[in-house]
Amino acid sequence: MISIAQALDMVLGAVRPLPEEEVALDESVGRVLAEDVVAGADVPAFANSQMDGYAVRAEDVAGGSESCPVELRVLGTIAAGRPLGLTVGRGEAARIMTGAPIPAGADAVIPVEEASSDAPERVSIASSAMAGRFVRPAGEDMRAGDRVLEEGRRLGAPDIGLLASLGRASVRLRRRPRVAILGTGDELVPIGGALGPGQIHDSNAHALGAAVRELGGEPSLLGIVRDDPAALRAALTAALRFDAVLSTGGVSVGDFDHVKDVMDEIGLERRFWRVAQKPGKPIVFAVRDQTLFFGLPGNPVSAMVCFHLYVAPALRAAAGLREVFLPASDVVLGEAIRTAKDLTELVRCTLRSEAGVLVALTTGTQSSGALRSLSLADGLLISPPGTAELRAGDPARALLLRAGPALASTHPFA
Amino acid sequence: MISIAQALDMVLGAVRPLPEEEVALDESVGRVLAEDVVAGADVPAFANSQMDGYAVRAEDVAGGSESCPVELRVLGTIAAGRPLGLTVGRGEAARIMTGAPIPAGADAVIPVEEASSDAPERVSIASSAMAGRFVRPAGEDMRAGDRVLEEGRRLGAPDIGLLASLGRASVRLRRRPRVAILGTGDELVPIGGALGPGQIHDSNAHALGAAVRELGGEPSLLGIVRDDPAALRAALTAALRFDAVLSTGGVSVGDFDHVKDVMDEIGLERRFWRVAQKPGKPIVFAVRDQTLFFGLPGNPVSAMVCFHLYVAPALRAAAGLREVFLPASDVVLGEAIRTAKDLTELVRCTLRSEAGVLVALTTGTQSSGALRSLSLADGLLISPPGTAELRAGDPARALLLRAGPALASTHPFA
Repeated sequence: MISIAQALDMVLGAVRPLPEEEVALDESVGRVLAEDVVAGADVPAFANSQMDGYAVRAEDVAGGSESCPVELRVLGTIAAGRPLGLTVGRGEAARIMTGAPIPAGADAVIPVEEASSDAPERVSIASSAMAGRFVRPAGEDMRAGDRVLEEGRRLGAPDIGLLASLGRASVRLRRRPRVAILGTGDELVPIGGALGPGQIHDSNAHALGAAVRELGGEPSLLGIVRDDPAALRAALTAALRFDAVLSTGGVSVGDFDHVKDVMDEIGLERRFWRVAQKPGKPIVFAVRDQTLFFGLPGNPVSAMVCFHLYVAPALRAAAGLREVFLPASDVVLGEAIRTAKDLTELVRCTLRSEAGVLVALTTGTQSSGALRSLSLADGLLISPPGTAELRAGDPARALLLRAGPALASTHPFA
Repeated sequence: MISIAQALDMVLGAVRPLPEEEVALDESVGRVLAEDVVAGADVPAFANSQMDGYAVRAEDVAGGSESCPVELRVLGTIAAGRPLGLTVGRGEAARIMTGAPIPAGADAVIPVEEASSDAPERVSIASSAMAGRFVRPAGEDMRAGDRVLEEGRRLGAPDIGLLASLGRASVRLRRRPRVAILGTGDELVPIGGALGPGQIHDSNAHALGAAVRELGGEPSLLGIVRDDPAALRAALTAALRFDAVLSTGGVSVGDFDHVKDVMDEIGLERRFWRVAQKPGKPIVFAVRDQTLFFGLPGNPVSAMVCFHLYVAPALRAAAGLREVFLPASDVVLGEAIRTAKDLTELVRCTLRSEAGVLVALTTGTQSSGALRSLSLADGLLISPPGTAELRAGDPARALLLRAGPALASTHPFA
């Protein structure tokens, strides 16, 4: 059986980047850039004031103080967006608002709190200023020609602001991955329906759809496929127009023979079946043209763990992201646990920060059916092959399923 | 001037929870629960097999081994979703598939790999089993009456799976916050348009809209309001039907008088103006009925920092989340920095994990106009009042703007 690392290499080796598309800026947050963004002009384009006050020549106010203020002649008021084209000469000043362009001749701003004026054409400055004080120079944020955002970046809110400040109304992104999701099995009942004997609700399709959505993909739930080769062939064939297909069930030893036959018939080229891991051992991965097929186990936890290990990195890579893996962290065991000796075991755990160390405790039963234990989990602790037991205090690595709970999020200013 | 903690108390004290709504399960990921979810039945509802194999009575195979296999009579095959109603008596077994119900009388499953069969009605078992082996008991995941998800929880993918396994097709959520966004200023030009002298693009509205979206809210960009009391009055009045209104600009000393007048006229009750912080000092917060009004500074970084400090916690609280603050972490300075002595300064920084410690480096200029430095930032380091300088190696706290980059996300299985 292959290892997780080998399986991951095969999956990532099969990924092709999705096509690009032009998207309106306001629809772009969370999406992945398909271009390098280069500033076409300085931002800001002109030196401007950081304060409401008076634009002055620093040399004119060099000796100013509360006890010995400097008197200047006021030429007028410069509001933001309304440059006046005036020049500040020796002994002169201009009233200026935050964001308004610094007039020619001036090189510093005196805040209004440090000035007094008893007539519109005169001001008394009670402080001095170095050249550049409260002046935001042209190009302070970006200079023309700067590469400010790189292809493969997931756009956050400040990036959207930065693109807007460059005047960009749209941006080139990778298309979102379109993912078909199929549940297979005669035991499955759609949500909302009542269960008969031996039946369960089709929970995997909904959990996987939500996981695809969290990742920025577009899930399509294609429904439940009964345990019948013709039905499976029809469903898989219809799903092959998607970027990726996730099915659940049909991959255990007793089922897989007929699934394998259907895959062969429709040209899904199998790359691996079964990985030395727990949970999620009987995963199958196959490819046809640009479509990735993941046959995930039917057990809910196994399906989700395989999603995090293989599907999510593949979708992130297809979307053009350079960082495709879940964040991982060093942790310390908070209790003793037994693990599968001959497999890599992924143990659902909570993580709590204690004196700068992340302490891992299991979330209870590690049965591959116990979805609640995954709902409670902050991370997946990695127990490598060859390890049958971890003791309290042992170091380990863990994949982080969410960052928040592992870190204090109490009132940071109390 | 009030402190950040005092301002936060006033903001959070003014928040009212948003109304509830019933939402289809597949639209619920990332949203906030407005109900406690109690399991209506055991999940799974019946004991079932974890493997493909043979359902047996453990006592029948107690002495089984490779050298001394036990012969059993096979009553039939139980597939998932197709219970047969048969009872396994002494010396009997039933072929069983993963997920299929354990038949009456049987209490363990022998995997198919440990069995051999030369005729459909006979099987030879080459191993023993304790009662319960490879049996997933009824109620293993959830028991009827268990409270499995609590009001105030943001639903993740496993939670969606859990709700689906309870058969829930819809769920009771808090409505998403609807947020109006206004840019104010004669200097502002819509994105896509060319800049004249002294003009800048209206970047704040787009950055704030993206930030609202990242938080799960619904932003409405209402456009640019010119520096004119009548225009501001009309725009603010129209915005008051939203849950929250964010405006940018108009809050500096020289501008605020006329903004204050307009707020008074339309009944926006001012709770504070100006907080002892940098950047973002001139923020104004006001309330009318159920609407929260945040008058954010016009400088791009100031606007975004105020968003993280005040707007985001308010929107999270309104949406019903119990965790409303950004995660925070202990960090260590990687370089010396000067900070504002009389204010709380929020320093944009990158965070790198070194030997289990998060090391903070500034992202360059801390000018409140330098949006790029926020785009590069992993966190906001908190320099409290009374501190004018932090030295390399000094401890501090930082708010985390994103978790990933602070933690290794390289191939975790390489």
